[in-house]
Amino acid sequence: MEQLELLRMLEQVQGGELSPQDAVLKLRMQPFEDLGYAKVDHHRGVRQGVPEVIFGGGKTPEQIIGIAQSMQRQGGHNILITRLDEEKAQAVSQQLELDYHPMARIGIVGRLPEVTAPGYIAVVSGGTSDMPVSEEAALTAQALGNRVERLYDVGVAGLHRLLTHMDLLMGARVVIAVAGMEGALASVVGGLVSCPVIAVPTSVGYGANFHGLSALLSMLNSCSSGVSVVNIDNGFGAGYQASLINHIGGDHL
Amino acid sequence: MEQLELLRMLEQVQGGELSPQDAVLKLRMQPFEDLGYAKVDHHRGVRQGVPEVIFGGGKTPEQIIGIAQSMQRQGGHNILITRLDEEKAQAVSQQLELDYHPMARIGIVGRLPEVTAPGYIAVVSGGTSDMPVSEEAALTAQALGNRVERLYDVGVAGLHRLLTHMDLLMGARVVIAVAGMEGALASVVGGLVSCPVIAVPTSVGYGANFHGLSALLSMLNSCSSGVSVVNIDNGFGAGYQASLINHIGGDHL
Amino acid sequence: MEQLELLRMLEQVQGGELSPQDAVLKLRMQPFEDLGYAKVDHHRGVRQGVPEVIFGGGKTPEQIIGIAQSMQRQGGHNILITRLDEEKAQAVSQQLELDYHPMARIGIVGRLPEVTAPGYIAVVSGGTSDMPVSEEAALTAQALGNRVERLYDVGVAGLHRLLTHMDLLMGARVVIAVAGMEGALASVVGGLVSCPVIAVPTSVGYGANFHGLSALLSMLNSCSSGVSVVNIDNGFGAGYQASLINHIGGDHL
Amino acid sequence: MEQLELLRMLEQVQGGELSPQDAVLKLRMQPFEDLGYAKVDHHRGVRQGVPEVIFGGGKTPEQIIGIAQSMQRQGGHNILITRLDEEKAQAVSQQLELDYHPMARIGIVGRLPEVTAPGYIAVVSGGTSDMPVSEEAALTAQALGNRVERLYDVGVAGLHRLLTHMDLLMGARVVIAVAGMEGALASVVGGLVSCPVIAVPTSVGYGANFHGLSALLSMLNSCSSGVSVVNIDNGFGAGYQASLINHIGGDHL
Amino acid sequence: MEQLELLRMLEQVQGGELSPQDAVLKLRMQPFEDLGYAKVDHHRGVRQGVPEVIFGGGKTPEQIIGIAQSMQRQGGHNILITRLDEEKAQAVSQQLELDYHPMARIGIVGRLPEVTAPGYIAVVSGGTSDMPVSEEAALTAQALGNRVERLYDVGVAGLHRLLTHMDLLMGARVVIAVAGMEGALASVVGGLVSCPVIAVPTSVGYGANFHGLSALLSMLNSCSSGVSVVNIDNGFGAGYQASLINHIGGDHL
Amino acid sequence: MEQLELLRMLEQVQGGELSPQDAVLKLRMQPFEDLGYAKVDHHRGVRQGVPEVIFGGGKTPEQIIGIAQSMQRQGGHNILITRLDEEKAQAVSQQLELDYHPMARIGIVGRLPEVTAPGYIAVVSGGTSDMPVSEEAALTAQALGNRVERLYDVGVAGLHRLLTHMDLLMGARVVIAVAGMEGALASVVGGLVSCPVIAVPTSVGYGANFHGLSALLSMLNSCSSGVSVVNIDNGFGAGYQASLINHIGGDHL
Amino acid sequence: MEQLELLRMLEQVQGGELSPQDAVLKLRMQPFEDLGYAKVDHHRGVRQGVPEVIFGGGKTPEQIIGIAQSMQRQGGHNILITRLDEEKAQAVSQQLELDYHPMARIGIVGRLPEVTAPGYIAVVSGGTSDMPVSEEAALTAQALGNRVERLYDVGVAGLHRLLTHMDLLMGARVVIAVAGMEGALASVVGGLVSCPVIAVPTSVGYGANFHGLSALLSMLNSCSSGVSVVNIDNGFGAGYQASLINHIGGDHL
Amino acid sequence: MEQLELLRMLEQVQGGELSPQDAVLKLRMQPFEDLGYAKVDHHRGVRQGVPEVIFGGGKTPEQIIGIAQSMQRQGGHNILITRLDEEKAQAVSQQLELDYHPMARIGIVGRLPEVTAPGYIAVVSGGTSDMPVSEEAALTAQALGNRVERLYDVGVAGLHRLLTHMDLLMGARVVIAVAGMEGALASVVGGLVSCPVIAVPTSVGYGANFHGLSALLSMLNSCSSGVSVVNIDNGFGAGYQASLINHIGGDHL
Repeated sequence: MEQLELLRMLEQVQGGELSPQDAVLKLRMQPFEDLGYAKVDHHRGVRQGVPEVIFGGGKTPEQIIGIAQSMQRQGGHNILITRLDEEKAQAVSQQLELDYHPMARIGIVGRLPEVTAPGYIAVVSGGTSDMPVSEEAALTAQALGNRVERLYDVGVAGLHRLLTHMDLLMGARVVIAVAGMEGALASVVGGLVSCPVIAVPTSVGYGANFHGLSALLSMLNSCSSGVSVVNIDNGFGAGYQASLINHIGGDHL
Repeated sequence: MEQLELLRMLEQVQGGELSPQDAVLKLRMQPFEDLGYAKVDHHRGVRQGVPEVIFGGGKTPEQIIGIAQSMQRQGGHNILITRLDEEKAQAVSQQLELDYHPMARIGIVGRLPEVTAPGYIAVVSGGTSDMPVSEEAALTAQALGNRVERLYDVGVAGLHRLLTHMDLLMGARVVIAVAGMEGALASVVGGLVSCPVIAVPTSVGYGANFHGLSALLSMLNSCSSGVSVVNIDNGFGAGYQASLINHIGGDHL
Repeated sequence: MEQLELLRMLEQVQGGELSPQDAVLKLRMQPFEDLGYAKVDHHRGVRQGVPEVIFGGGKTPEQIIGIAQSMQRQGGHNILITRLDEEKAQAVSQQLELDYHPMARIGIVGRLPEVTAPGYIAVVSGGTSDMPVSEEAALTAQALGNRVERLYDVGVAGLHRLLTHMDLLMGARVVIAVAGMEGALASVVGGLVSCPVIAVPTSVGYGANFHGLSALLSMLNSCSSGVSVVNIDNGFGAGYQASLINHIGGDHL
Repeated sequence: MEQLELLRMLEQVQGGELSPQDAVLKLRMQPFEDLGYAKVDHHRGVRQGVPEVIFGGGKTPEQIIGIAQSMQRQGGHNILITRLDEEKAQAVSQQLELDYHPMARIGIVGRLPEVTAPGYIAVVSGGTSDMPVSEEAALTAQALGNRVERLYDVGVAGLHRLLTHMDLLMGARVVIAVAGMEGALASVVGGLVSCPVIAVPTSVGYGANFHGLSALLSMLNSCSSGVSVVNIDNGFGAGYQASLINHIGGDHL
Repeated sequence: MEQLELLRMLEQVQGGELSPQDAVLKLRMQPFEDLGYAKVDHHRGVRQGVPEVIFGGGKTPEQIIGIAQSMQRQGGHNILITRLDEEKAQAVSQQLELDYHPMARIGIVGRLPEVTAPGYIAVVSGGTSDMPVSEEAALTAQALGNRVERLYDVGVAGLHRLLTHMDLLMGARVVIAVAGMEGALASVVGGLVSCPVIAVPTSVGYGANFHGLSALLSMLNSCSSGVSVVNIDNGFGAGYQASLINHIGGDHL
Repeated sequence: MEQLELLRMLEQVQGGELSPQDAVLKLRMQPFEDLGYAKVDHHRGVRQGVPEVIFGGGKTPEQIIGIAQSMQRQGGHNILITRLDEEKAQAVSQQLELDYHPMARIGIVGRLPEVTAPGYIAVVSGGTSDMPVSEEAALTAQALGNRVERLYDVGVAGLHRLLTHMDLLMGARVVIAVAGMEGALASVVGGLVSCPVIAVPTSVGYGANFHGLSALLSMLNSCSSGVSVVNIDNGFGAGYQASLINHIGGDHL
Repeated sequence: MEQLELLRMLEQVQGGELSPQDAVLKLRMQPFEDLGYAKVDHHRGVRQGVPEVIFGGGKTPEQIIGIAQSMQRQGGHNILITRLDEEKAQAVSQQLELDYHPMARIGIVGRLPEVTAPGYIAVVSGGTSDMPVSEEAALTAQALGNRVERLYDVGVAGLHRLLTHMDLLMGARVVIAVAGMEGALASVVGGLVSCPVIAVPTSVGYGANFHGLSALLSMLNSCSSGVSVVNIDNGFGAGYQASLINHIGGDHL
Repeated sequence: MEQLELLRMLEQVQGGELSPQDAVLKLRMQPFEDLGYAKVDHHRGVRQGVPEVIFGGGKTPEQIIGIAQSMQRQGGHNILITRLDEEKAQAVSQQLELDYHPMARIGIVGRLPEVTAPGYIAVVSGGTSDMPVSEEAALTAQALGNRVERLYDVGVAGLHRLLTHMDLLMGARVVIAVAGMEGALASVVGGLVSCPVIAVPTSVGYGANFHGLSALLSMLNSCSSGVSVVNIDNGFGAGYQASLINHIGGDHL
């Protein structure tokens, strides 16, 4: 119940059209969201063409289609489906117009939105094996209305590759640093730029990598200030957080 | 060597005042920083009264004083010293004018700077035992020129305490969520607000808390989007990144 | 040897029909259970139509059928088979009348029993991916004679969904809280209700979830009182203990 | 705002004494608790003489005294302070009438309440080193209005000690099983009784005990049904949960 | 070089048939084994019909056949092949006369030897899922010349099953206790018998079992004296160690 | 109730001196131990002068004295107290005649018993820092009636030191291998001898030793057959099991 | 930009052919590598016939072929492809002349180079299951211009096998010790030789091996000096570093 | 027994001065070392003035003095004592002429030896808190006859500090990279230089650093080739292996 509706209801009580007893009942029955406590970007999303998000992992194609169609009925024109493997994507695309990105395992129902944030997000990654996670981050950010600059395969084993593109890094409003193995990229990037860095450890590696643990711990212990971390392989989370930051203080919002 | 200096040197070469050979030598000898690749906020800090930071943990009072005095010689008027226990603080305060905050274990040489960012940062914490880390975050943010609103002891075991202050949360540009034990606060806050949340797991707890591991894993696996995480007990890191985010797009910068 | 049998035997000794020596031998040979130390619900189950339980994981269909038939020969009319995948279920159903629930991976031989406990158990879960474990808990509780109310997909990322159903939660005698990822649901529910909460961490998630470790640690460290925890993905265990609690002090028993 | 107050307010709107606009404001400003969503036992506690609880660990004596006095001002006559070491207890007892139990590290302000639950809770423990945690559980349960039977030093290395007291175990409504080292007690007890078992792993042990991890994992993996687990050394949590269970369906409530 | 050969060589030096220089060379070239330091049971095995052992895991059928045939050429009549899955067993049995035990994944080339040790080894296991590891232990012990008594499915959840067979347990010279999940069986058995107990944790379980870690830690922390532990699922190791112990002081050796 | 007593009671039933009903009651009340299921070495110990054992860790001097005096009242002449630090030892020795071994942290009340087993136990250790654990093992074994040969400081970094003493190793009936750091000693010894090896990992080391974890895992994964493992630093457990093994088949028992 | 080019450019500035402003621009645009900071072996490799390396794991055959062909275009005649499974190898070999080693999962485009280092590298391994990793190390070293001596299946369970080949070990300039399970080989070898030992833990084992963790920790805690460690199963890394060491101070370079 | 002595003994046999039987006995009694299998640098050390090493951690001052004096009696003029805290150092220095370095916790009895290796070792470290471990490495290397160049406080958060000293790095024969927290320094250095890098993780850090685990895993997973790793805080081990490498192929040896 939005404030306006609440006001209308109270005016009905004032005008005698609604008894106080019924008003109590109605207030108790109202979903909490209606009282104004809920997260506003649910509504904002619909207004601005920013997509709703479905986490496709562990859902059947039928469940995904069902949720997406329900979103569409509620007016959602852009829907982002993450962790969507190729087989599921095929099943989904038989019922929905789907723009599928196999490397990022992302499907987009509808078109990518306009850019709604002033700056750009740089997505930097260590090696070619980190590209799926990097693309998940990059496409998520694009789907949320951001301009994205990609800077891939610039791992710290060949530092000059990174340093060559300092200008691109320095110009970003947020940097997403994606790296597996020892995850040193986050610290090095964090030491070079003065904007926030969102670090994404990947599970790329083997042995004492322990499925991404080495990169995760490395990034959490970064000696560079200004670095925060999301879950292993969570490109979506990084893209989402970076988008929130990139939209801060912009005219477009 | 800043661009201007580089230009000057090249003009000397042009004008015959400097031989190409000597220029080569000079370029090779220049610290990398001088070529313009270095992090600019080192200099920005000095210009803007934003403090330099000394990590006091594992340093002797003598080392701290030495570094601080060297910073002062280079023009640093505000110096933030973190992880400074009371005993060291006393030793340091005999040589430097120190504003010491025992709970946050933070010492500030000089005064807190003016507010230089448009919005405010909300620091939310679960229990009274999380206050030292929360205060480290809050004071760091203040020392970096941010307005900070504190909302302490609003753990999820008593959800109404948190919900009562929704307005304060919803108005923030960034939220720092500090919690130990199961760290659920980050997810709950992340589900309520639409701005970036920086989660700080604390080592508060015992047993299967494993010195903060439970809160750390909990926060990394948050089902709420828009949450990123810093190291256990790293109030400073959260305050620093929140400040970076809060300063984005502001007029003050 | 039940007390009555023991009494009969001693009367035989008294009556001279059995020598003390033979009685000693008989007592030593008796299974411990017969001396009255054993868990009574083995017998209670048979009397009350509450099913016997077979853990189907790691057993062949032949073993499952064999155990079930042996139970039937001993008078068991309702048998609950957990962790029964579809392939095994098909094999089992060729020999036994099986009511199979694929999502919960539960098969029931015979019908669900009457409700034998006064209140109801609320099964609350975080996301749709937690449904298999939730259903295992719910069906187990039903198979043990409980009324169950399901409240699914009410994760803490959208708190209003949970708060909307407070009445259902508040009316329960026991709540089973099922959640993966960061497992914050247990703490939030534990902070809202005043009945016991049995928390079930699930292995839903990825990366630093470490196959359910994050939810497990989170739930063990819950800042809410009244929460205890079972093994990761152990819906059966939660349903079983919730049933024990729900049957306490009831007229039906 | 309780339902009655809400009704009164709406009647004021109806009667024109309060404008709808002001009512909206008032509703938004109300603490969530007042809308009826909050945990009722907060109030119930005060009514019934059941103590409020202060977690003393990580709090200064001053903080403890402050919180306790604030509770007293709100009508709390019985206050349970856990994790209160001797030094702090002495400081607290200078300002409050404190009944201190050094082994359990529990302090009680006021007297133990009457027994308010029908059955009794059995607290069973493995070795003498587990007594502090066992006593924390037992005293917590007593402070919450339960009759408690203690059965200490009955570890599985000498099974006969446990079996000798089967009657006491079998008569309990809830059993709290406290054990360190390999924590096998929980499984053995769980296999003997037919009531719920709350297992408390303790950090007693050394080496591959890893501060209670071995007992924790052991208890979580119990092959006996009806066992749930609280955090390592969390005697309070077990006593609290057992009390909730013991009070179910009782006339006293 | 055995002592006799060494003596012969030195006599050759004494007799002038071998120069000291050549003797030095010969001594340096001798395999260490020849000097008498090597493990004698290599030879003993061949003499006594005790089988040689091939760890089949991670070896190709060709490698297994090759090693076995080489052993046969050196006089080995009984060869024990462990961790031999069915597919490999079929391939091996085409070239060697193989007695294959699928549950234990053990193949024996030749016949089981005579019993060569005085007492018997009791193999006790918790559940039916532990049978593969139990059988690996039992068959290994039999293949090494021991009488073995099996006592399966006597987990601590139903203690009476174990207590019913106390005589069998008490008569053993060594007990091998095999259990997964919480591994409590080792402690309970260790508390009942007065002979050495070799505990074998199995990977049976799920969730916080962590592939056998819970049982392993549980057994290492056993509160019963007289228990030592082998690797997770290492039935062979337990059977081997038990055989060494069972052969101590016997007439047969 | 021993068999004789049971027989007497049944004769009373036969003779009419005891009613069957009262006999049932009496049987139910009997401690389990009396039915003959209990561990016999409790009694054997007292008969043979083998000491009772008190785990001194985590017990107060008063508790230790109390338990010891109770043992003495029951006829125990030799009592072994492990994990007894010097301060406690002093307190205990004021009330009991104590033979204290500070390095092993072992106190013996009474004298070391006669040797009651045929062979000897070799205690082999890696470095001087492993001596406390080694001595705990050695003294435990001596206190249980074994001859012990010590072979200290023969770590694998200097293999020749170990090989020099092959005869002593080869002659033992059981070897206890004590090592910290990488724990390789157990494998090397296991590969050299043909008797059972009890491996004791110690917490000696630093860094990735993780308080003994490296040695523990190393020993559990030993590629040598015939090695079983006790808890980290559990010298007592190794000495105890070695004694059980050493006493097997001996004339002395 | 090499020094010569830099000099030329500055001479152009001196000669007025290039404005200082354009020179500044050019300097900023130059890849960092050109300023002389880059790793020289990139160039050295091409000059000396030492192969470039492609990590084949996680790359598609198309990506591998693409990178290899790009290397060939830049003059690379020898290319080492690691972690190349058989299926990929077949695909790659259809486009490139590939010498494939299935056990080591290594493919070499072009021929093995001449030996360019003075001494030889000994690759020592514990068991036959360690051969794939050992061969990866050995072939890597050969591909980098080293003479390699292999000494396989000399695990510490049969120490004499290792001691028999002391001469081969003692003559090496570097030893690579490859072992799974408990990894004791590294310590034993480290105690025997006086040259650097590079230890490679393998994931060979099961249970408490935890995928190579036991061997890794064991090797990191080696009590022998002169041992350093690479990642689990990282044969390539060991071969590469051994080659660097073996080339030190040699005439061939 | 060195070869010469062996030859002498055999000549005695040849000459009839020694019976073959007595020679057999003598050979069996000889320490293994004497047969030529032992590590030669034990003797080399004494000849060349390279110090013997005592690991001071966990040893009493008396033990240290005893070992050192025994070394001196055997001709050792330079003795390196590591992990020697100040208190012990004072005690030791009362009996031995000790050159104590408090930061490195190293004591040297006698003088630092001449430089015996051709190149130099660069010790690079991340932060000032890493200095104790760095100094342990540096002083160890110096004590073993190496020239050492120190490059401290060049962590990756300020990359330019490291890049400024590229020449020093590029000229080294071996680099020791010492870093705590995320340990990224090893990868960055490994990517810059073409000589072997020995990485030393330190326990500097807090929280998810887990006492050096983050740096350790980071270094083991380095994406740069040519990096191997020693134990956490093991400056000595790094210095020792670096010295072995630095002495390879040198004229001085």
